[in-house]
This record gives sequence, structure tokens and C-alpha cells, in this order.
Amino acid sequence: MTAAATAVAYPNIALVKYWGKRDEEYRLPMTGSISLTLDLFPTTTTVTVAPGATIDAVCIDDAPPSRPATQRVQQFLGLVRALAGRREHATVQTTNSGPTAAGLASSAAGFAALAVAAAAAYELELDPIALSRLARRGSGSACRSVFGGFTCWRAGAGLGPDGDATSYAEPLPRGTMDPAMVVAIVDATPKPISSTVAMRHTVATSPCYWAWSASCLQDLIEMRKALADGELVTVGEIAERNALGMHAAMLAARPAVRFLTPASLAVLDRVAKLRVDGIAAYATIDAGPNVKVLCEAAAADVVAAGLRAVETVQSVHIGRPGPAPTLRRLR
Amino acid sequence: MTAAATAVAYPNIALVKYWGKRDEEYRLPMTGSISLTLDLFPTTTTVTVAPGATIDAVCIDDAPPSRPATQRVQQFLGLVRALAGRREHATVQTTNSGPTAAGLASSAAGFAALAVAAAAAYELELDPIALSRLARRGSGSACRSVFGGFTCWRAGAGLGPDGDATSYAEPLPRGTMDPAMVVAIVDATPKPISSTVAMRHTVATSPCYWAWSASCLQDLIEMRKALADGELVTVGEIAERNALGMHAAMLAARPAVRFLTPASLAVLDRVAKLRVDGIAAYATIDAGPNVKVLCEAAAADVVAAGLRAVETVQSVHIGRPGPAPTLRRLR
Repeated sequence: MTAAATAVAYPNIALVKYWGKRDEEYRLPMTGSISLTLDLFPTTTTVTVAPGATIDAVCIDDAPPSRPATQRVQQFLGLVRALAGRREHATVQTTNSGPTAAGLASSAAGFAALAVAAAAAYELELDPIALSRLARRGSGSACRSVFGGFTCWRAGAGLGPDGDATSYAEPLPRGTMDPAMVVAIVDATPKPISSTVAMRHTVATSPCYWAWSASCLQDLIEMRKALADGELVTVGEIAERNALGMHAAMLAARPAVRFLTPASLAVLDRVAKLRVDGIAAYATIDAGPNVKVLCEAAAADVVAAGLRAVETVQSVHIGRPGPAPTLRRLR
Repeated sequence: MTAAATAVAYPNIALVKYWGKRDEEYRLPMTGSISLTLDLFPTTTTVTVAPGATIDAVCIDDAPPSRPATQRVQQFLGLVRALAGRREHATVQTTNSGPTAAGLASSAAGFAALAVAAAAAYELELDPIALSRLARRGSGSACRSVFGGFTCWRAGAGLGPDGDATSYAEPLPRGTMDPAMVVAIVDATPKPISSTVAMRHTVATSPCYWAWSASCLQDLIEMRKALADGELVTVGEIAERNALGMHAAMLAARPAVRFLTPASLAVLDRVAKLRVDGIAAYATIDAGPNVKVLCEAAAADVVAAGLRAVETVQSVHIGRPGPAPTLRRLR
């Protein structure tokens, strides 16, 4: 009998960022992080166990992916098999509905979907913490996309299996906020340097990295309180300063890593202008040039119109808190 | 008898930046810095001692300047009078040939010219070190513009009068380089926040400030060696990383100070492209959006053409190592 499962998972955008690993193999972060899972750009992944196959076959958006991407998926399936005590190879088919590798958390959605689908296909029963830990092994930030809404990824402690056991995401109470996140796409092409490589280079060479990561500890404490209090303005202020600090740490790397483009700054300028006009809007940017803007849901249309008016913005998408992954067992 | 003197002084562009004061009153820097005085955008200042006048009169570019700018000049003349043992007030007329307060070192040229002219008008005989220390009291970076070519501003040690005695610039041997600095103007209007205020805010709030200032110590050592060896590529690499580190420290301030505009990044992108094309060109940016690009004099025309091709660049100027201030005693 062939077992198969399809999972749909959503990207999450960090409000307190994850940038820097203390353990590359286990993808253990230097610091904890807090994110919002969106209802935009889901990834749909089907894992079909294929007894008799001699290799895992991987298709992303109907095409075989690059060799490193294929190997990353194969390695991940190896982990799932080890946990399940299974040996059969599988076929993986993934469709990503948003831009890939453009700082829009496609790998978070992708590995969350893969974790959920593969666990089901290999009949591996995992509680949410174990599922989050598993997803983390594929892409660090994927551990947050196994939950909907706001989540906190505990950094955990220690290296190797010790760290692995203690580093996972968990949902955060939503409070009374009604937030939206407006995504301004300025460039949907894949970034020139992967997050993994950019992180490693930042940690190794930026004189500002450690100061920024220390500042994250304070931001985490203040962000949890602001979320619990439903204080969107404070959430936004912390998110924007934390993101700019991360890009500062990259800019100070030697040589600099710069994901910010002229178009990114044009969006930041517009967000600042929205605030001057009395609209609570706060920007965050990940490892790519695109800008995500946190605001009240009631203000999302006005914010979107403001961002659309920026000449270098290609498209604008209004996101809302998204769901946890959904799973369908196929056979 | 009326005494008057006219001085012409040139802006200097730091290759290892000055950002942050350890003593606001004496304008003592946190760290040493290294600069290149340019032959562009001189400031011409005439100081006329006016016996019987009850106040110092200040004109900049034929108009009375803002109240804070006037007070800054008046305070500086008070220092000159105290050193000279004089009491008469004076008239100051300044003409600045480049953009003012746009990150093009107008205040360095301005206070170097004022120091030289005022010292002469008040018959104050100063050796170069004392002149550099005096200029520093008007604007920190002015202490470097009392010399031509490359200069090093020693941070000195201590606060107040102790620091004052030990913090001054001195010329650096030129080595065998034949450098040019190509200035790309993207916005010639005055910046929205003064360097003094932006520095204070960065030091007080940026988690990255101290790491960057520590990195300056290493950059100073390496830059002196690269200049002595005539290694323009190394000089350029250090200058660019030091400048980006300074802007990183500002970007991480809370809230962020951002002098980089979309147009600044467009020029940085072009400089990176010039390097891909095999031209040794390295950018530096001060407290304003405009970009200065260090290169070999032989490559200056190609670099200038490349920068002119950037849509958001308004004008391009090729600078060469400039002279020390010149002085004319008028009566």
C-alpha cells in the first residue's frame, strides 16, 4: 500500500528576528524570536511514500529543484524516516503560491508543510512541540509556521541533541489586537545570497552582530508584553527597530551583506510618511528587499494604497493572521 | 585701525569616520579618524575686527544665518578672543561654494576657514597643532581641514582641558598613491538632523555603536598602513566597510537615524557594479545622502561617467587631494 499526505502551511514574518545559528546542524538559533503567521502565500506539499524507489524524488512548482534544494529535502526526509523507524523513499511535490527566496518566508512555509505532510505519510505521530522541533531541522523559521497567529520560538539551551530538545515554537495568546500585515513586493526574484550563508557571514564578521543579538533579548521581553497588552503601536515600534538592527548588523559585516535596495528604502520612507500622517504603520524586512508593514486591520486599505503609490512597488498584498497548517491524508 | 583677514579652506572626507563625542563642550571624539582634504567646494571666510561693535555679526552666503548657527560662530569667536586676550567683536562673512549641511563637510571647511581667518584677524599666532585644536572647537572634523591631503585626527586622551591638549589632526605622508574622490550629489538640501544631534542619539541608543567604534581602532591601524604602502584597493575596502559600519550603528539607533536614501543605495549599487567591471572604486557616505567614491585618478573619468548614469544622481564632481587653507591679511 502507498501512503500519502498533503499539507498546506503559511509563511510567518518575524517581529523579533531570528538571525544567526549557534548550531548549524540542528539549526539552533542564537536568540529567541517572535512571529506572525500570515494568511498569504501558502505552500502546498504532498509526500507520497514510494516503496521500491531508490531515491527521494523532489519537484517544486512542477520542476526538479536545484541540487542543494533537493539534498536539503532528502536530508529532511531522512530525519523523518529515522524518527519513524522507516526505510522507504518518497516523492515530494510542492507548490509555493508566493515569491520564493525573496524574504517572504517561503522556506518557513515550505518546511512546515513538508514536516506535516511527511510525518503523516510516514505515520509518525508527533505532538505540536515535536512537530515544531522537526520543522526547525529543515529551516529554522519553519518551526514557527506549525502554528497560526503569533508564535514565540524559544531559543532553548545547549548544542546538539540538548539544544534540539529545548528549541521549538509555541503559540502566543493573541490579545485584543486586530492586526494586518501589508506586504509590498519590490522584487520577487530570488535573493543573491541564501539566509544560511548571510547569517553565517554576519555572525563571523560583523562587529555589530553580538550587540544586536543582545538587544533581541530585551526586544523579546518587551514584545511579549506589548502583544499581551494588545498595544499595536508598541509592537510595531519594537518590530521596526529590531528589523533595522538586524539589517544594521548585516551592513556592518565585512564585506557588507545588504538585502536593502533603493526600492526597500523608498517603502521605508513611505511608511515613515504614513506615521507622520497619523497612521500607525511599522515596517519589517527579512533577508530580501521586500517590506512587510504591520498596522491595524482597519487601516490596512489606507496603508496598502500608500504603498501602492510608491513608484518602485510592484504589488501590494494585505495579510491577516493566518492558520496553522492543514493536513489531508490521501490514501 | 581695523584688522581683517580672509581664509579659504577645503572640506575633508573621512575614510575612517568620526562619529560620537566623549566630551561635547570640547568636541573630543570617541575615536581617531583619517581623512582626505579635497580640492572641491572651498569655503571663503573673512573676519573683520570691529572695535565698538557690541555683538559679532555673521553672514553666510550673504544672508544672516539661523540663530543656532550664529551662536555657534559667536561662541567660537569668544574662544579666539580668550586665547588672544582681546575683547573687540567682529564681523564674519562666509561664502560656501558647495552644498551646505548635506554630508559634504561644509562645517569642516567652514570652521577651518573661520579658525584661520579669526586667528589672523585677532593677531593670534598659532602653530599647526594649536590651530587644529582651535578649529576642532568649532566643528570636530574641522581640525582635519587645517591640513591638505590625508590627515589623521588623534583622539587624544581625557576630558576637558586634558583632552583638548591631546586631540588634534596632523598630516599623513601621502605615499605613492594618485587618488581621486568622485562626489555624486543626489540631494543638495540640508539634512533633516544635525550631525551633533545624530551622533549624540547614536551613542545614547544604538546597541551597535560601541562595537563599531571599537572596530574603528583596527581600521585606523590598517588604514595608516595601507596609506603608507600606497595600497588604494585596501584603503578603499577599509573606508567602505568603516562608513557602512557607521551607518549601521545609526540604523540600529532607537529610533533609527537614516541618512541613506534610495538614491544613496542606487549609487552604492553602481559602485559595486563598477568593481564587478574591474574598476577599483569604493564608496563612503557621511551624515547626508551624498556618496563619495575613492578611486585612482586615472579611473576618475570612468567612475564619474558610471555615477552620472545613475538616474537619481543630480551632479558629479571629480575631486583630488586638496590644499591646506590659504590666508590673506587684508589690512
